[in-house]
Amino acid sequence: MSGSAPERSVTVFAPATVANVAVGFDVLGFALDGVGDRVTLTLDESSSGLTIESISGVEVDLPKEADRNTATVALAALVRGCGVETGLAVALQKGIPLGSGMGGSAASAVAAVVAADRLFRLDLSREELLRYALEGERVASGAAHADNAAPCLWGGLTAAIAHDPPEVVRLPVPDALVCTLVHPRMRIETRAAREVLPREIPLGAWVEQSMHLCGFLVGCFEGDLSRMGRSMVDRIVGPARSSLIPGHDRARDGAVRAGALGFGIAGSGPSVFAWSSSPDTARAVERELRAAFAAAGLDTDSWISPVSRRGARVESGCGS
Amino acid sequence: MSGSAPERSVTVFAPATVANVAVGFDVLGFALDGVGDRVTLTLDESSSGLTIESISGVEVDLPKEADRNTATVALAALVRGCGVETGLAVALQKGIPLGSGMGGSAASAVAAVVAADRLFRLDLSREELLRYALEGERVASGAAHADNAAPCLWGGLTAAIAHDPPEVVRLPVPDALVCTLVHPRMRIETRAAREVLPREIPLGAWVEQSMHLCGFLVGCFEGDLSRMGRSMVDRIVGPARSSLIPGHDRARDGAVRAGALGFGIAGSGPSVFAWSSSPDTARAVERELRAAFAAAGLDTDSWISPVSRRGARVESGCGS
Repeated sequence: MSGSAPERSVTVFAPATVANVAVGFDVLGFALDGVGDRVTLTLDESSSGLTIESISGVEVDLPKEADRNTATVALAALVRGCGVETGLAVALQKGIPLGSGMGGSAASAVAAVVAADRLFRLDLSREELLRYALEGERVASGAAHADNAAPCLWGGLTAAIAHDPPEVVRLPVPDALVCTLVHPRMRIETRAAREVLPREIPLGAWVEQSMHLCGFLVGCFEGDLSRMGRSMVDRIVGPARSSLIPGHDRARDGAVRAGALGFGIAGSGPSVFAWSSSPDTARAVERELRAAFAAAGLDTDSWISPVSRRGARVESGCGS
Repeated sequence: MSGSAPERSVTVFAPATVANVAVGFDVLGFALDGVGDRVTLTLDESSSGLTIESISGVEVDLPKEADRNTATVALAALVRGCGVETGLAVALQKGIPLGSGMGGSAASAVAAVVAADRLFRLDLSREELLRYALEGERVASGAAHADNAAPCLWGGLTAAIAHDPPEVVRLPVPDALVCTLVHPRMRIETRAAREVLPREIPLGAWVEQSMHLCGFLVGCFEGDLSRMGRSMVDRIVGPARSSLIPGHDRARDGAVRAGALGFGIAGSGPSVFAWSSSPDTARAVERELRAAFAAAGLDTDSWISPVSRRGARVESGCGS
């Protein structure tokens, strides 16, 4: 970095994330390594609005209208909130498949607001960035849940413990934990995945899920992988959504057979994830998951990753 | 203790406990100091059964039939389970008012099984003792929840994270925490308090309570009293039960005004509790709570106590 003219462009990488984590519907989420979206923001002094310059990567059929794309909706909220008046050109590089359950809309929105924060040296808190990112999420899913955007911003395993205003805490995660994520190539829209959920749940099911949630958090704080795994029980959301995902039950049984600590649907699916206590087990689990989806006639993409400590980060450019 | 004939009698004190703790219905509970039940078990070789020799203390109108009293039902389960064949005489000294929400039936059952464990040198694990104690609880409330018996046995603040078989974990509690407990002199039967509960809860309410439960546990592990207090939110059970308790709303508002961190109904009520960060605040809260119930025409008993680290303990006697 020289002392000359300021950068006029910033690129931010925001990781894919897994929401719900079996036991924390709409509350828990964690970040992955090695897969995510990239947003490059460039100052465009010839205009005062937001324009989407390009969309590239694994998905290109996203809306280019600034009021329909999650990245630009989030950005527009920030621009309004912070009184930015310069024009901005947005280049979006998607690494996260659309409708995969891997937090793609959150990642694009988070990358955009983190890029703007750096470009204009706003020094916003993560809570403020989250609020703007959730504006983008609202476009994608009809509701603003922080369970993807929070781990995307904070990194690690997070719990959204309040939503208005949003409040997020990071939970400790044992180093040995390895995640296998498998994406069967089909799409589930978040809205559709919400429609299959029950509107009410029995009181006893609530109590049971509270027990598992307590067990899971105690496992996190005590570094007890086995307790975390035993607590990843979901009697409500997973069973309601599993019928949307061909091969789900076989995948779950295969993961357990291969020694996974816990298994769940990633966000609203169709991707599924499993946690293991070693890379070898994570690879054995990956084979089982891919085989289950192959048997259902679905091609897959897959990733093996720790629970990444790093959330969205600036990759290049340093702001004006 | 001399080297002569073994003790033929053991006395155990088991503390009063507060279940639910606002944010953990049927899951969380904590132990109080200075109030509880005492059970003295004496070997009676002239018979092979259980007999209730005496019931004294604040409550004396409890069933003396061994198959209807929680202490002797729990004891009978242990006697069967462990193959004890000696006759036993039970003296029960109640310090916990009946139907107060202070875990009296759990305390009597726990005291009885802990006394038998010592008397016969059984060295049972706490999980085994819990299972027998819950047999007694089943008589009292029609269901076996560990949210009173667990803190009564373990001491401290506990979470019951599984019920079949029961699994209990202790949660860390900041030293500064002080509990005010006020018992308005009326009775609510656990069964009646269960009947006012909704059978189902909205999905969104479940998510909100999960957020609060996460916040509460994170507060415990991080020693953050303020976060614990902010998370003690109950939109489901408290509102359903508060109408059973004259003065409840005024008590809650008074506790908040006096600076309490959090407020809730103790178990199924009518007792209420509040947590404060200093003894002075706890006393100010106590005045507010007593005044609220006095305005509703109810006399009160009250206690100020830390979250007691000590569960049920042998006070005298050392077993055969």
